[in-house]
Amino acid sequence: MAYGYWKMGIGDRESVFHLFFRKKPFQGNFAIAAGLETAISFIRDFHFDPSDLAYLETLTGADEKPLFDLSFLDYLSKFRFTCDVDAMLEGTPAFPYEPLLRVQGPLIQAQLLESPLLNLINFPTLIATKAARITWAARPDPVVEFGVRRAQGIDGALTAARSAYIGGCHATSNVLAGKLFGIPVKGTHAHSWIMAFEDEEKAFEAYAETMPDNCLFLVDTYDSIVGVKKAIAVAKRSNVKMLGVRLDSGDLAHLSIEIRKLLNKAGFPDCKIMASNELDEQLITDLKHQGAKINLWGVGTNLVTGKDQPALDGVYKLSAIRAEDGTWENKIKISEQRVKVTTPGILQVRRYSDGRGNVADMIYDLRTPQEPEALIIDPLDPSSRKLVTHKMLYQDLLVPILRKGEQVMALPSLAENRERTGRLLDEFAPTIRRFLYPQFYFVGLEKHLYETKINLINAVAGTDV
Amino acid sequence: MAYGYWKMGIGDRESVFHLFFRKKPFQGNFAIAAGLETAISFIRDFHFDPSDLAYLETLTGADEKPLFDLSFLDYLSKFRFTCDVDAMLEGTPAFPYEPLLRVQGPLIQAQLLESPLLNLINFPTLIATKAARITWAARPDPVVEFGVRRAQGIDGALTAARSAYIGGCHATSNVLAGKLFGIPVKGTHAHSWIMAFEDEEKAFEAYAETMPDNCLFLVDTYDSIVGVKKAIAVAKRSNVKMLGVRLDSGDLAHLSIEIRKLLNKAGFPDCKIMASNELDEQLITDLKHQGAKINLWGVGTNLVTGKDQPALDGVYKLSAIRAEDGTWENKIKISEQRVKVTTPGILQVRRYSDGRGNVADMIYDLRTPQEPEALIIDPLDPSSRKLVTHKMLYQDLLVPILRKGEQVMALPSLAENRERTGRLLDEFAPTIRRFLYPQFYFVGLEKHLYETKINLINAVAGTDV
Repeated sequence: MAYGYWKMGIGDRESVFHLFFRKKPFQGNFAIAAGLETAISFIRDFHFDPSDLAYLETLTGADEKPLFDLSFLDYLSKFRFTCDVDAMLEGTPAFPYEPLLRVQGPLIQAQLLESPLLNLINFPTLIATKAARITWAARPDPVVEFGVRRAQGIDGALTAARSAYIGGCHATSNVLAGKLFGIPVKGTHAHSWIMAFEDEEKAFEAYAETMPDNCLFLVDTYDSIVGVKKAIAVAKRSNVKMLGVRLDSGDLAHLSIEIRKLLNKAGFPDCKIMASNELDEQLITDLKHQGAKINLWGVGTNLVTGKDQPALDGVYKLSAIRAEDGTWENKIKISEQRVKVTTPGILQVRRYSDGRGNVADMIYDLRTPQEPEALIIDPLDPSSRKLVTHKMLYQDLLVPILRKGEQVMALPSLAENRERTGRLLDEFAPTIRRFLYPQFYFVGLEKHLYETKINLINAVAGTDV
Repeated sequence: MAYGYWKMGIGDRESVFHLFFRKKPFQGNFAIAAGLETAISFIRDFHFDPSDLAYLETLTGADEKPLFDLSFLDYLSKFRFTCDVDAMLEGTPAFPYEPLLRVQGPLIQAQLLESPLLNLINFPTLIATKAARITWAARPDPVVEFGVRRAQGIDGALTAARSAYIGGCHATSNVLAGKLFGIPVKGTHAHSWIMAFEDEEKAFEAYAETMPDNCLFLVDTYDSIVGVKKAIAVAKRSNVKMLGVRLDSGDLAHLSIEIRKLLNKAGFPDCKIMASNELDEQLITDLKHQGAKINLWGVGTNLVTGKDQPALDGVYKLSAIRAEDGTWENKIKISEQRVKVTTPGILQVRRYSDGRGNVADMIYDLRTPQEPEALIIDPLDPSSRKLVTHKMLYQDLLVPILRKGEQVMALPSLAENRERTGRLLDEFAPTIRRFLYPQFYFVGLEKHLYETKINLINAVAGTDV
């Protein structure tokens, strides 16, 4: 497509694309935006290496002839991004159809960003969202991300660790993620540690000697209750600080209650009980309802793969392009599936609060004069409307990051992004945050934008169908 | 754990670990082993950088004291892998509990490999398996992997492209994967190409001019039937070779049948009809049953994330360790869940064929004298047994790759791995390959190994529970 735009001489026409998702992830209301830092460094550092160009030169079509003109490859050799990018900061809750990111710039550049931006935003956003759900279920207990062994690739594990931290996790077992991102690292020993010794008690003794001030014993290699008794015996004998015991199998509710009694009776009331084994937000909630005495959670596969929905359905769509005469033309993609019709324009998202909590989000076109009052219309149900007034507080969620390819805002630190997630989520009522069948939260189009969209649908349908 | 083994002075004790999965992926019978090439290069190239050691030096425990002795970090600075590795070659069908890979070497080394090997084998194996299912559903039509936008990270996309190719895909839309792995790259234009022009017909004309010999038009931006008519008009007028049209929404069965008629009538009987949009093996099978006239398939999200089961449940378990006196001790992990009890020993997998097809797999201990006849016992149902005789053909599936850390076998090329998948799968009856409720295929333990396992369970239960 880049080759086509270049060949047709329209590669430099100014265009606007938005990145957004349509389907509520995990049946909740919202996603937690993430991945921006990597996306911005991709855009800033991007160039075609000589080896890239040499590879592109080898590509041929069905006719065995080279796919690309050499002069196009020469053009690519000097290619750099000079786009404007506005985006939601990492840790911002986002609803379906709201742009997480807007790119404005030469058509060829904005188009080339489609695949990388979707790859770099979809997955981190998915995992930050899952982590926000899991950590909310576990609150006030900390959650440690334990997913490296089942993650989708090396970068799948690293990106998941970073995104899980933004979503609210306290630490990761991935030491490389600790090194690269400064995330606290936590871990325990595995079953093979126990199996490597003559018996379980000798293995605990060796661990106590290795980590006298950081002892967390995995007790389920043979029998969890027997294991805890041995851990207690070793902790008493060795006089080590037993931080906790970990269960990785069996009935976590029953075992944790029995183990809590044993630990308390033995004089270890502060010793934590950690649980792992295919946990997710539903299972954690259920264990808490059952009175499980778990106060430290290790969550792996279901967190780092977003197991019940392993992909966010983010898309990246053209919404406006400048005509040769310099005027903007709004663009729309029609579809037989109503939910797939895109929104035209140059968009921003405004979140309104009544001072106690958020009440509605409005997607509007930057070019529409702003008035104190605005009417928001749900495009999927136009009878559903909401009036927002100047008495309300509001915030625009897309902030300028790049201008002509240069960074105009220093991105927040990972810790700030994590803090933002917690702070912004607290602005929503718990009923809106609920995991399943959450309360309806109003998101719609500003009236003029809604009308523009409807008119454009009719115009396209009139000429094309 | 490495620190503990080192501190206890047992880091050099020779040990054996196996990597295997327990749960049949996607409810089929088997997985397609993949990821070995990356795993082997990881092992060969692994070392601790000065920056890694500097990071490890900063880690502290609950007491704020350094977690590791400096002499341990000094030990790590010289650390290299000197293990033996035997593994199934990529493209080999593997069943639950069969080792995909065996590591034999110093305990500290084999332990350090747990997380990286699981990360590097689980995901590629999952995706090669999914690809084998999807390409089998689509046969004889080619399948193009289209997943980069929804994959779990950059490496998630690249590894998925490579694994999907091993599993049987014909090409990828991921140009970087094409460059790095030599996979054929294929693609079409996106909706934004159409939207960037004044109308759909002008967009097709521009595309025909850009790719006169490689025209594949995406026809569903506004209305698929109208789109095809326009594509036909443009192809006739421009006299380009129209390779195909692509549908990305709507009713693919109905539309493809109508479009086939239009194309044939217009004199384009060889023009392909490509379909994409949330496809997987079930949907492709269903579309074929409905008589859909699709003959080129683009599969993205469901393939590259393994959507219905986004993680293979591979584990890596200690199964034998040499005692101080040089004799081997078998090791086992007991569990309340019977399927989680591990198999002790130094294991190999033998696949038996009656000359027409495969009939059973036997897991056996390398140290057991081999006899012409063997009895295989299903450990989860010991009444289920099978006798294999010297009249049968057989093959041992784990082959030596590393000896003392040195590569003793050049790994096959990616194309050879892809060819192996097809060839070895053809040795199984179609009923065994079926997607859902496949025919039972016998996998069990050689009788002596079975007895060793039972004796060890009783011994551990006797002393520890």
